[in-house]
Amino acid sequence: MGLVVQKFGGSSVANTERIRNVASIIADTYKAGNNVVVVLSAQGDTTDDLIAKAQEINPHASKREMDMLLSTGEQISVSLCAMALEGMGFPVVSLTGWQAGIRTNSAYGSARIKRVVSERILAELDRRSIVIVTGFQGINKYDDITTLGRGGSDTSAVALAAALHADLCQIYTDVDGVYTADPRIVPDARKLEEITYDEMLELASLGAQVLHNRSVELAKQYNVNLEVVSSFTRQPGTKVKEVVKTVEKLHVSGVAKDTKIARIALVGLLDQPGIAYKVFSLLAKKGINVDIILQSIGRDETKDISFTISKSDLETARTALEEAQESLGYDHMTISDSVAKVSIVGAGMANNPGVAATMFEALYNGSINIHMISTSEIKVSVLVDVADADRAVQVVHEKFFSEFGR
Amino acid sequence: MGLVVQKFGGSSVANTERIRNVASIIADTYKAGNNVVVVLSAQGDTTDDLIAKAQEINPHASKREMDMLLSTGEQISVSLCAMALEGMGFPVVSLTGWQAGIRTNSAYGSARIKRVVSERILAELDRRSIVIVTGFQGINKYDDITTLGRGGSDTSAVALAAALHADLCQIYTDVDGVYTADPRIVPDARKLEEITYDEMLELASLGAQVLHNRSVELAKQYNVNLEVVSSFTRQPGTKVKEVVKTVEKLHVSGVAKDTKIARIALVGLLDQPGIAYKVFSLLAKKGINVDIILQSIGRDETKDISFTISKSDLETARTALEEAQESLGYDHMTISDSVAKVSIVGAGMANNPGVAATMFEALYNGSINIHMISTSEIKVSVLVDVADADRAVQVVHEKFFSEFGR
Repeated sequence: MGLVVQKFGGSSVANTERIRNVASIIADTYKAGNNVVVVLSAQGDTTDDLIAKAQEINPHASKREMDMLLSTGEQISVSLCAMALEGMGFPVVSLTGWQAGIRTNSAYGSARIKRVVSERILAELDRRSIVIVTGFQGINKYDDITTLGRGGSDTSAVALAAALHADLCQIYTDVDGVYTADPRIVPDARKLEEITYDEMLELASLGAQVLHNRSVELAKQYNVNLEVVSSFTRQPGTKVKEVVKTVEKLHVSGVAKDTKIARIALVGLLDQPGIAYKVFSLLAKKGINVDIILQSIGRDETKDISFTISKSDLETARTALEEAQESLGYDHMTISDSVAKVSIVGAGMANNPGVAATMFEALYNGSINIHMISTSEIKVSVLVDVADADRAVQVVHEKFFSEFGR
Repeated sequence: MGLVVQKFGGSSVANTERIRNVASIIADTYKAGNNVVVVLSAQGDTTDDLIAKAQEINPHASKREMDMLLSTGEQISVSLCAMALEGMGFPVVSLTGWQAGIRTNSAYGSARIKRVVSERILAELDRRSIVIVTGFQGINKYDDITTLGRGGSDTSAVALAAALHADLCQIYTDVDGVYTADPRIVPDARKLEEITYDEMLELASLGAQVLHNRSVELAKQYNVNLEVVSSFTRQPGTKVKEVVKTVEKLHVSGVAKDTKIARIALVGLLDQPGIAYKVFSLLAKKGINVDIILQSIGRDETKDISFTISKSDLETARTALEEAQESLGYDHMTISDSVAKVSIVGAGMANNPGVAATMFEALYNGSINIHMISTSEIKVSVLVDVADADRAVQVVHEKFFSEFGR
């Protein structure tokens, strides 16, 4: 007997048949003696359809009114799912974000959950009702409806699990867990039984979008036991925890690829103190996140700085840097958007020297040229040509998962 | 400068073009210096579509979950309409039933408004925002969403007008006012400039469904100035008031027809005290409203009782009366559902003897047979064969509106 929070995404509740499937998963969890709180996204394309309606009326509608509109999508899902469970004879109640006590700040469209006032949910659980809560939404201090932005329903689920001290928070998706690499690139990639929060965070930021970072950060902060699992297969998924308890700990948990990046190089910068500060504070002011940075050792009186940014920030960065060419004092700028970042992630890496070297060896044997390198406690990233990216993932995966393999 | 509440039905907001039309009516009212509170129904077929979704999942869904589902329809309308007004440069805010402070009892699916907590709306009006409120819905004491049932949005509008002491409450529909008869039956029927609450109540209950009775009752109770007006023509509509101020007061305001009725006759009842009580208390227990009652003068030791009820109650009534044949002690029962009620309504009737006789004269001249008669202070109703109903409306309308015509 425990408390389980289960979150289902939009594709899991896209039609009547799938809602019935979700209801039967919930029912099984409840019948096993658990209290169950469910978080749902909007059905399939509902959110996109609503956005299209709004666009037709006013392409510059306020975010406040957009949130008012979009929040109806989840309200439809939760009531329909509750009806399905009623039809199966279970006590159930659906709740909107405000009814469930989800309080956020006022950043319409990308609100942050500030706290969960859980009285109502606890009262419903006390009478053994299944509680179905709208994901992705809450209310702010003005009692206006807010939405949480991308990955919002995952965050809703983790926030509820934290507030209710749930024993488990299951995130049902259309994949059945976290893999050592993208199975579309590496057919023999393996599903991980467990992974740490930090590894999950690195993997998410590296392009393996299974869970949104905000939800994983929240889970780490409140030590919520997460599980990524498929609503279609009903197989065990991947557990995300603080400490992974596998006996033979893998040095490396996974290999990830990110192609949504671009590289900028400023060539011939005057080699004077504070030049890096000038470049990167300029980009920070424009809200641009910089990832890998490479600064050449000064020769003559100049040096070069290269860095990667998200492709979507490329034009903003280019314009800002061009306008500042005189004050920064560089000779010219080169830009490449045909690059990719390939990374290995693993909590076991910190205490295992040689992991990075093993990765470089694999790439060398594959004749793959490395442009930039970046390392942290639990990851090693390299920048390669985008044409080499999939092969890089394959050779690196082959190296680690045949040598140190489980 | 005043406060105007404007209510628009589902057909008035069915698509982008119509929402723009509604927005321009609202904008004109606002630009004339008024504060404006708007109440909207769900777009076109939205409610029916949501009901169909629910039916597919669970044909016996609880009313609580149905209300949760259906209330999204109005939330979509109000946010889209607010976006349209934003696009035109007006300050505007949309509010759900709970945000607007509409508190109801807990009769899901047919809730009654108990009070309106108007602080939020007043604060928005203070900063000269246009306020767009979801019709048809509120919340109960458990903070659960309720819907008001048929005619609910009209009731929401009148309740808000009463709570806010609005100067005028305009109900925009697809007809442009209240007519002396249904223009489809009587092509030269005239639009009334004004009508009293009581006349409107009688007309509504007699089958001229322009406004739902609940909204008119509420308007009468709080003396709300109502106006029925078309969102398509922008012509003056019909005002509904306590006292009609026209100089030459019409004896008769309108002629109405109701075909959704049936007649039951109990023949050969024992002529003993309390028999009428027994018959009608039996029907009352089943929740059946009885309209016209005709009791024959006793002859021998038996008498007959005939009465009309709504067609939708016919089977329930038949079964109940058959089961009670022995205890009521009647000989046999005859049932006719091919009858119609034709009525004249007019506040001026009470002080004008001969109005009823004039109606009967018109029907006699038209060779239309009258089965039953019922009168009140402001109406005269007759029961005729359904085949005669339209002609009855025509000859009666002709009689009154050529003899006493405006």
